[in-house]
Amino acid sequence: MKIGVFGTGMVGNAIATKLVALGHDVKMGSRTADNAKAADWVKANGARASQGTFADAAAFGELLFNCTSGAQSLAVLQSAGAKAMAGKVLVDVSNPLDFSKGMPPSLTVCNTDSVAEQIQRAFPDTKVVKALNTTNANVMVNPSLLPGDHDMFVCGNDAGAKGKVTELLKGGFGWKTVHDLGGITSARAQEMFVVFWVHLYGALQTPMFNVHVVR
Amino acid sequence: MKIGVFGTGMVGNAIATKLVALGHDVKMGSRTADNAKAADWVKANGARASQGTFADAAAFGELLFNCTSGAQSLAVLQSAGAKAMAGKVLVDVSNPLDFSKGMPPSLTVCNTDSVAEQIQRAFPDTKVVKALNTTNANVMVNPSLLPGDHDMFVCGNDAGAKGKVTELLKGGFGWKTVHDLGGITSARAQEMFVVFWVHLYGALQTPMFNVHVVR
Repeated sequence: MKIGVFGTGMVGNAIATKLVALGHDVKMGSRTADNAKAADWVKANGARASQGTFADAAAFGELLFNCTSGAQSLAVLQSAGAKAMAGKVLVDVSNPLDFSKGMPPSLTVCNTDSVAEQIQRAFPDTKVVKALNTTNANVMVNPSLLPGDHDMFVCGNDAGAKGKVTELLKGGFGWKTVHDLGGITSARAQEMFVVFWVHLYGALQTPMFNVHVVR
Repeated sequence: MKIGVFGTGMVGNAIATKLVALGHDVKMGSRTADNAKAADWVKANGARASQGTFADAAAFGELLFNCTSGAQSLAVLQSAGAKAMAGKVLVDVSNPLDFSKGMPPSLTVCNTDSVAEQIQRAFPDTKVVKALNTTNANVMVNPSLLPGDHDMFVCGNDAGAKGKVTELLKGGFGWKTVHDLGGITSARAQEMFVVFWVHLYGALQTPMFNVHVVR
């Protein structure tokens, strides 16, 4: 499948690399078509890897991943263009972390709204699925790095889109348990969880952890 | 030990009952000294159980549990009085859930503040420890209701207070793993986790679950 990945950071890199390894054709999008980090990634990932602007990646992908920082996601997606994203599934991996007031970070939006909801409202013709934002980038694409059972969470308004993303998370990325939290408003829960994650990271002194729901 | 429990709801009832079962003398506090729910609890729990006003419970306890709803906790504790709580450990179990806008609830405070921080600021001579607010009341006092390992979280500014509470949670309540998230500002993480908990409750259709940190 042709997939567009917005963002050249740790998360974008990890997800784009995994998708190429799974046999997909991936275009990494950034502000400029010649972004140096994207160029390094293309060099390291062979013929299925390419780069371009956010608009190029949006036009290229049948499936899209938003791996930009949550506070900037709306502007990024607006520069990609609603038309190029219409009718497509967008997996929103972003977190609205605000480090400007020091550590630990707060969120730029939460409680009664979320980045994923903002995106869904701004792009009503795109099927937004919130996923993968609740773990470290390495764990996202390789859950077997941690022992035993641990879980992934998705939400979104379109059942078919959630189904496709869940299939990719399970069959492709290797997640055993994917909880469907409901409509896109549950992105509040997934994004607010990240504050808990950050404090737990501080306590454990490693980002290599995740939660397993026991019942 | 003499323990004061503020609140006559599900959480206050579960914790007060557990503490009596562990051999402690417990006074359940409420707005009025003759609260009917507290009276029922006293009747069911024998000679070690008593009831009174919030101020009575505060004066009685060497250790205190705040099991009132988060949005009302400050007013409750102010009616109990700073003097009666001075020098004591207060375990804050409250959650600032706001159901006024429908389900799922939002929080009345979060992100850059929390109920536990509000309490610690208002009562600087009391040692506030946030704990137990991240699970259902039945699981709080009987973690063995769920299979395998699953975890509890505490935070607070006073290491000695956290140590005492952790000892009670482990030796008394039966928690195997208690993560110390740090100072009282980490109560933001514990309280924001509850939004995640609520959405997961909606997905699982049961409150009988908890998370285990896998690493």
